[in-house]
Amino acid sequence: MAHIKNEAITPRNEDFAKWYTEVCKKAELMDYTSMKGFIIYRPYGYAIWERIREYLDRKFKEAGHENVYLPMVIKESLFNKEKEHVEGFAPETLIVTIGGKDKLDDPLIVRPTSEVLFCEHYAKIISSYRDLPKLYNQWCSVVRYEKTTRPFLRGSEFLWQEGHTVHATAEEAKEEAIKMLHIYDDLGKNFLAIPFMKGRKTEKEKFAGAKETYAIEALMHDGQSLQAGTTHYFGDNFSKAFDISFQDKDGSLKHPYQSSWGVSTRLIGALIMVHGDDNGLVLPPHVAPIQVVIIPIRYDLDENVKKVSDEIYEHLKLQGIRVKLDNDSTRSPGWKYAEYEMKGIPLRIEVGPRDLANNEITLAYRYNGEKKTIKLDEISSISQTLDDIHEAMYSKAKTFLDEHIHIAQNKEELGKLLKQGGYVEVGYCEDEACEKKVKELYQATARVIPFDIEKDGTCPICGKKTKKVVLYARAY
Amino acid sequence: MAHIKNEAITPRNEDFAKWYTEVCKKAELMDYTSMKGFIIYRPYGYAIWERIREYLDRKFKEAGHENVYLPMVIKESLFNKEKEHVEGFAPETLIVTIGGKDKLDDPLIVRPTSEVLFCEHYAKIISSYRDLPKLYNQWCSVVRYEKTTRPFLRGSEFLWQEGHTVHATAEEAKEEAIKMLHIYDDLGKNFLAIPFMKGRKTEKEKFAGAKETYAIEALMHDGQSLQAGTTHYFGDNFSKAFDISFQDKDGSLKHPYQSSWGVSTRLIGALIMVHGDDNGLVLPPHVAPIQVVIIPIRYDLDENVKKVSDEIYEHLKLQGIRVKLDNDSTRSPGWKYAEYEMKGIPLRIEVGPRDLANNEITLAYRYNGEKKTIKLDEISSISQTLDDIHEAMYSKAKTFLDEHIHIAQNKEELGKLLKQGGYVEVGYCEDEACEKKVKELYQATARVIPFDIEKDGTCPICGKKTKKVVLYARAY
Repeated sequence: MAHIKNEAITPRNEDFAKWYTEVCKKAELMDYTSMKGFIIYRPYGYAIWERIREYLDRKFKEAGHENVYLPMVIKESLFNKEKEHVEGFAPETLIVTIGGKDKLDDPLIVRPTSEVLFCEHYAKIISSYRDLPKLYNQWCSVVRYEKTTRPFLRGSEFLWQEGHTVHATAEEAKEEAIKMLHIYDDLGKNFLAIPFMKGRKTEKEKFAGAKETYAIEALMHDGQSLQAGTTHYFGDNFSKAFDISFQDKDGSLKHPYQSSWGVSTRLIGALIMVHGDDNGLVLPPHVAPIQVVIIPIRYDLDENVKKVSDEIYEHLKLQGIRVKLDNDSTRSPGWKYAEYEMKGIPLRIEVGPRDLANNEITLAYRYNGEKKTIKLDEISSISQTLDDIHEAMYSKAKTFLDEHIHIAQNKEELGKLLKQGGYVEVGYCEDEACEKKVKELYQATARVIPFDIEKDGTCPICGKKTKKVVLYARAY
Repeated sequence: MAHIKNEAITPRNEDFAKWYTEVCKKAELMDYTSMKGFIIYRPYGYAIWERIREYLDRKFKEAGHENVYLPMVIKESLFNKEKEHVEGFAPETLIVTIGGKDKLDDPLIVRPTSEVLFCEHYAKIISSYRDLPKLYNQWCSVVRYEKTTRPFLRGSEFLWQEGHTVHATAEEAKEEAIKMLHIYDDLGKNFLAIPFMKGRKTEKEKFAGAKETYAIEALMHDGQSLQAGTTHYFGDNFSKAFDISFQDKDGSLKHPYQSSWGVSTRLIGALIMVHGDDNGLVLPPHVAPIQVVIIPIRYDLDENVKKVSDEIYEHLKLQGIRVKLDNDSTRSPGWKYAEYEMKGIPLRIEVGPRDLANNEITLAYRYNGEKKTIKLDEISSISQTLDDIHEAMYSKAKTFLDEHIHIAQNKEELGKLLKQGGYVEVGYCEDEACEKKVKELYQATARVIPFDIEKDGTCPICGKKTKKVVLYARAY
C-alpha cells in the first residue's frame, strides 16, 4: 500500500515557525481559544505533560520534597514586598479588581509565580532549626500576560512545577539549587533524549529577586536556544523581606536561606523542536504516551492478521509497553502511517499477510524512517528496541548540539558564528554593557556561564582580560 | 510510658465547628493565608488529595476518559452565553479587569467551573458522529468568591476534577451522568470508607444550566449532610447555546447531548467529619498517606528494639505499605502517640523491650482505640489488618448513617426529626414552594430524591398525594 500523505506540513527549512505551530495543531497537542495566549492542552499534549510530571514527581519525592498547593491569587500589597521581584513581574500580570460584584480594596494578582505566598507561609511555620529544611514543591499553572505568544513556548498561562526550599545555611540552599539543576539535566538525558547546556545565568539574565540563577538550555533544530528550566539561589533576600526567621542550635535568631526551581510545559516545545521533522512530531519512547502502534493490513479480511495483531497487542501490553492497535477498517494503512508519524509514535509495527507468510512483521522507526522485518518470536525484544531508540535519539541530538558549539576569538567571529546558529563561546568580562552590545549587534543573549570552565581570554566587545567564558546564542 | 496529651482539642459535642477547624490546623492539613477564603494545602492535606486523585484518575482512564487542561480564565462575553449558568455563578466570581497594566476590553472571569470553555472547544473539534463520544476530564482549581468560608468545605478556591462529556444521544449522556455517580459512590465505599446517599436533586437544588443533577451526600458526625459530589445531565442546553453540532450517520445535522461531573477537596472535609474523633483525624487505610507508624520505645538504648523496628519497617515497605518509622529520640513515645493520633494514622505499632521479651509487638488501632499484641512472626498479616480496618470503619459509618434515616408522616414529625439530625424521608410533591417552606421552618434542604423508591404518600407541607420520596436534612 502506498504511503499517502494526509495533509503535508510546511517543511522546517522553509519556515520553522510555521512548521512548529502546524505540528502543535496537527499532532493534536493543543488548540487555540478565543482568548489570546490561552491555549487548550488537548489529550495528547496533556498526556505528554502527565508523563513528565510523573517522572519528576517521583524524583522530587525520592529527594525528600513534599507537594503543597497555594492560592492562585496574591494580594497586591503582599506581592509588592520584594522590590526586584515585583518589578520583574508587574508588566505581565493579570489583576483581579472585582470579587463577588464588589470592587476589592486590595486587588488580587493572578500568580505569575508563588515566591511571596510560600514566604508568607514559611514565616508562620518556621521558628526553629528543627523546622528546617523545608522542601516544598507545587504543581500548578501560572499566568504571564504576554503580548507575543506561541504554544508551549510563551503563553499567557502555562503549567509548571515550582519548588521552594528553605535551609539553615547559605551553602545548603545553594547546593539545593544545583542539585535540582542536575535532576532536570537527568530528565533530559534519560527521559526526553535532550542534551542540555548547563550553567549559571549572568547578572543581567538572572531571575528577579535571585542572587544566582542556574539554567538548562536546549538547542532547537533552527539553531536557537530554548531556556528549558531554571533553579535559583535566593540567599536571604526573601527571608528578610518576609521576616522568616529561626532560632538556631546556639540559640541565636537567624534568617534562613532559600532556593527555588521550575520547569514548565515549555519542555513540550523543546521536544517538538529538538526531535521533530518534516513529517511531524517525533517522540522519544520514555515520554511518549503511545510507544508502539500496531497497524494490521487487512485485519477484517485475514484471520491470521487479526489473530497475530491481537496477540502482539496483548503481549506488549503485558510487558508494560504503552501500545495501541489501530484496527479501524475505514482508514487505509497509508493514512494511518502518516497520522501516527505526525503524532510521533516512536515505533510502528506493520502486520500484513505477505510478512506473516514468512512468520515476520515489519518495524518502522519514527526517528530515522528506517524499516526492518523481524521474526514473530523476536517480539519480546521490543522493549529493548525502545531503549535503543532512546539512546539513538539522544546521540543524534547530542551530535547536533556538539556540532553547534563554537568558540569566537573576536567580535567579527562572534557575529558570523551567531548568524550560523548554535552557541558561541567567548571570554566573560561580567560587564552588562557588553551583553547589551551583543544583543544590539547580533540579537543574541548570554545563555549560560558553563560550570567548571576557567580559561584565560578576552571579552570580544570591550577587550578586557577574562578568566571565565560565557555562551551566547539567539534564543526563544 | 504514660499517654501524654500534647494539646487537647475541643471535643466534638462541645463545639463541632471549632473541633473541625482545630483538626484541620493541628493535623497540619491546611493553613490560612492573609487572603480570606484562600487556604494552603499543606503536605499532609495535599497528600490525601493526591491519593484521591490517583484513585479516581485510574478509574476515569479505565472508563475511557482523557485528561485535558483549559484556561483558568474565561472571557466575560463567552461566560454570558448560557443564561441560567451565568446567573448561577455571577455573584461569586473574581473578575480580572487589568492585564499587563492595561484595562481589558473584555474582562476575564477566573473560572468558577469550565463548561463554557469546554463548549467553545467542542464546537471546534466536533463535526461528525465519528468524533463522538468525547470523554474529557480536567484536574484543576476553581474559584468561587464566598462570603463565609470554611477549610475544604466552602472556600474561595478549591481543587477538583470536572468531567465534561459529549454524546450523540440523550440516553447516552444521561447514562454517563449516572455511571459517574456510581464511580463516586464506589470511591466512598472502597477507598474513603464513607457510605453515600445517592439520588437526583430537586429542580430547586440542581446545577445552574443542567436538566438533571445527581448527587452523593454523606452524613457528618453532627447529623448534617454534606454534598460530596455531583453529576449532571445537560441535555442539549449547552450544545445549542454554544452551537455544537455533528452530522449523524444518516447525514442529518444534530446538536449532541452533554454530561458533566465533579468532586473536590470537599471530600477531605467529609473524611474529617465522618471518621474524626476527639483525638483528631481518623483516616481509613486506603486513602491514608501514612498507613502504619512504628514507634520504638528506647530505640537508641536497646539494640534489639532498634533491630526489630528497622526490620519491621523494611518488611512493611517491601509489602507496599506506606509506613513511617519515628525513631526521633528527642520526643517521648507518649508525645508521638498523641501526634499520630491527631494525624489519624490508621495503625500504630509499638516496639518495646517488654513485649519483645515475649517476641511480641503491640498494635494500636486508631479508629476504635483498641490495642492488641501479636507475635513477631505475624507481621505479614498487617496488610490484612489494614483491609479489616477499612471494612470496620465503613461498617461503623454505615451503621451511624442507617440510624439517622427516619421517615416523617407529617410536618410536626419532619421538624422534630430534622432537629435530631440525619435524613428525613417524606413524600415528594415536586413543588418548590414546599421546599422553601421546609427551609424557612427548619433550616433544612432537599438533599436527594433516592433512585428506585416509588411509594404512595403525602407531602408534609401541602398535603398533596405523592408517588416519590425526598430526603431532607440540614446541610453544609
